[in-house]
Amino acid sequence: MASSSIGTGRPKTRGIVLNSIRAARTISRIELAARTGVTPATITQVVRELMDHGLVVEVGRGASTGGKPRTLLQLNPQARYAVGVLLERNICVLVIVDLNGRQVARTSFPGTALLPPEKALALVAAQVDALIDAAGVARERVLGVGLATYGPQDRQAGVLLTHMPTAEWFEYPIAQRLSKLLSLPVLLDNDAAAAAIGEYWLGAVKQGTYGCLYMASGLGGGVVVDGEVYRGSSSNGVAIGHITVDINGRPCGCGNYGCLANYADPSAVIEQALNESSLGRRLGLDPGDTDVMTAFRRIATAADAGDPDALRLIERSGRLLGTAAVTMASLFDLDLIVLAGPSLAAAASLYQSVIEEEVQRRTFVRPAHPVRVITSVSGSDAAAIGGAVLVLQGELAFLELGTPA
Amino acid sequence: MASSSIGTGRPKTRGIVLNSIRAARTISRIELAARTGVTPATITQVVRELMDHGLVVEVGRGASTGGKPRTLLQLNPQARYAVGVLLERNICVLVIVDLNGRQVARTSFPGTALLPPEKALALVAAQVDALIDAAGVARERVLGVGLATYGPQDRQAGVLLTHMPTAEWFEYPIAQRLSKLLSLPVLLDNDAAAAAIGEYWLGAVKQGTYGCLYMASGLGGGVVVDGEVYRGSSSNGVAIGHITVDINGRPCGCGNYGCLANYADPSAVIEQALNESSLGRRLGLDPGDTDVMTAFRRIATAADAGDPDALRLIERSGRLLGTAAVTMASLFDLDLIVLAGPSLAAAASLYQSVIEEEVQRRTFVRPAHPVRVITSVSGSDAAAIGGAVLVLQGELAFLELGTPA
Repeated sequence: MASSSIGTGRPKTRGIVLNSIRAARTISRIELAARTGVTPATITQVVRELMDHGLVVEVGRGASTGGKPRTLLQLNPQARYAVGVLLERNICVLVIVDLNGRQVARTSFPGTALLPPEKALALVAAQVDALIDAAGVARERVLGVGLATYGPQDRQAGVLLTHMPTAEWFEYPIAQRLSKLLSLPVLLDNDAAAAAIGEYWLGAVKQGTYGCLYMASGLGGGVVVDGEVYRGSSSNGVAIGHITVDINGRPCGCGNYGCLANYADPSAVIEQALNESSLGRRLGLDPGDTDVMTAFRRIATAADAGDPDALRLIERSGRLLGTAAVTMASLFDLDLIVLAGPSLAAAASLYQSVIEEEVQRRTFVRPAHPVRVITSVSGSDAAAIGGAVLVLQGELAFLELGTPA
Repeated sequence: MASSSIGTGRPKTRGIVLNSIRAARTISRIELAARTGVTPATITQVVRELMDHGLVVEVGRGASTGGKPRTLLQLNPQARYAVGVLLERNICVLVIVDLNGRQVARTSFPGTALLPPEKALALVAAQVDALIDAAGVARERVLGVGLATYGPQDRQAGVLLTHMPTAEWFEYPIAQRLSKLLSLPVLLDNDAAAAAIGEYWLGAVKQGTYGCLYMASGLGGGVVVDGEVYRGSSSNGVAIGHITVDINGRPCGCGNYGCLANYADPSAVIEQALNESSLGRRLGLDPGDTDVMTAFRRIATAADAGDPDALRLIERSGRLLGTAAVTMASLFDLDLIVLAGPSLAAAASLYQSVIEEEVQRRTFVRPAHPVRVITSVSGSDAAAIGGAVLVLQGELAFLELGTPA
């Protein structure tokens, strides 16, 4: 993250304290010390500093446990904000979240299509500016922007390592460029990883090892272990869409063959709707249309409304996403799989029930422990919210406190 | 691990110091302090304690860097030992390793077939006793036994959660029983995870995120991140044999369908040898034979000798194991895959070249970084050696030092 924020000492302790207050919602100094393992004296000092800068506030007293009642602390959620952006060809979602990770503003538009990166990022920057203005958030309180998109990426360099959607995007400095346009730090990350960590931060998942199965235009995955994204060697793991599920299958653009995505993702379902029945015609789908998300949403809506052809296609896609979920659970030994992203949100309950059924029946680890399947609390916005959460997670520790307010 | 060893203070620091000396081979106290972040005063004290107990020795002086020459330290490899056991139906390998993880004794026998656990463990215990005697290792210097086998397992409870090879094995207290028979602590772990950590400990892999693709009678995987086995929720992850690679495939005993193992593991290759050509007859394979490893080794040897039918089968198995390697690399974002276990060792160079070709061509992360494929330094013995290494890794920190020698 190209960030200008520099800590004023003890940044790690400060991050731990902020995160513990956030997770607990309200907590006393003495509980903070017990939970973090930091000495009470240091807690007192760090909390004083955070209160001087308006990040933490006192909110009354807890019940006495014998001695004098303990003063309770809370984050001041309006003290700082983060922006999250889901960027892709067929959908862009922008959110602003407060220090608690709660959404305070949101907008979306139908994606950047085949725009070159220069123009696409100018469009995104204009929308971010407009959203900050509309939300009435003071710009100096915005910590940065989390830009969540597909991979492979070089996360440190802030570039994509793919020619999608066009060759100009390969190694274009998207994080640096957006940072310059907005005069804000910008962090690049994987959409599914962002969605996964967002669930944890928002309290939907408390602990354990869990995964996120994510579907927007494409299919991806993210895994969280003990509150941290599983990164592997280069943060390009959990590429669940590009593993072979049909050893007799056709070659994929990625270099592999029989890839899961080609059987189950929105483009595959649209192709099936056009070729296998009258569904495509009935829904007015156009084979030449590149707006995958809108077409897919029509099929999902028809399935939800009980159209048998649409139901059959979504169920088939669900069974295959079940294979993705089973493979993720069997390889990462997961307790839980969270379904997120606009395409899974489009038929959330249908997908949830089919995928859960597959996981219960087929996962190798099930003799050792249960594996649950739930839908994301953030639905379509999971990656954008997660992007903003990654900014909070990364920046709170190194916050530039400046002079006290 | 049901262990009687209790530290005498500072156990974590002691483990870190021992591990740093081991990794460096020879190192001075001041370098130890720099590398571990422990204060020089504490290093001096911990090293003194370890020397008093004969675990660390001084081995001369390094080159002067201006001041007085630094005294170099080494582990005394003969100070303690660990036993590693690979236990399965078709093969058992027993090793004793010294403090450096180097093998000092080894034996093997053709497995415990369908013996009930009581009898199988008595057989293993007798072999361990005989090996300790034959090696001339003082029993009080043996830290414990690492029992490496297939899963799913409850590693903490020391039991298998599978009915393989017979129903009596399910939840039978194998670790506790073997511990009682040998009067030694026994740790249960996954064979592929053990094989993976063994590579790191023996110095074959220095760093990064890497995986081990392991094949004995069955097929498994292990992943190591920063020198630690990836554990997931219950240490039953990387179950690469039981993921779907053929969405049109037949049901597997595990509850899933189209499982990779059923196309690529030794039993599958033997079945192909019996059904697809004269190879099975020529090699004298018997359809009723349950000794999978011996039959598979015959096919692998024939392939190595250039038999075209055998070559075709091993290559086909290799392409499918390539799918396993690609899936592991794409999900865990690996730098490196190590091929280990008796069945991969039986045709090591053939498997290595075919699997590497598949990985180079098909892995999603390859635009981000190279992914190498190598064969294990320990070959057939990888899981047994890894089991012993897991004992060292777990026990060194909590070593019962007793009274100085």
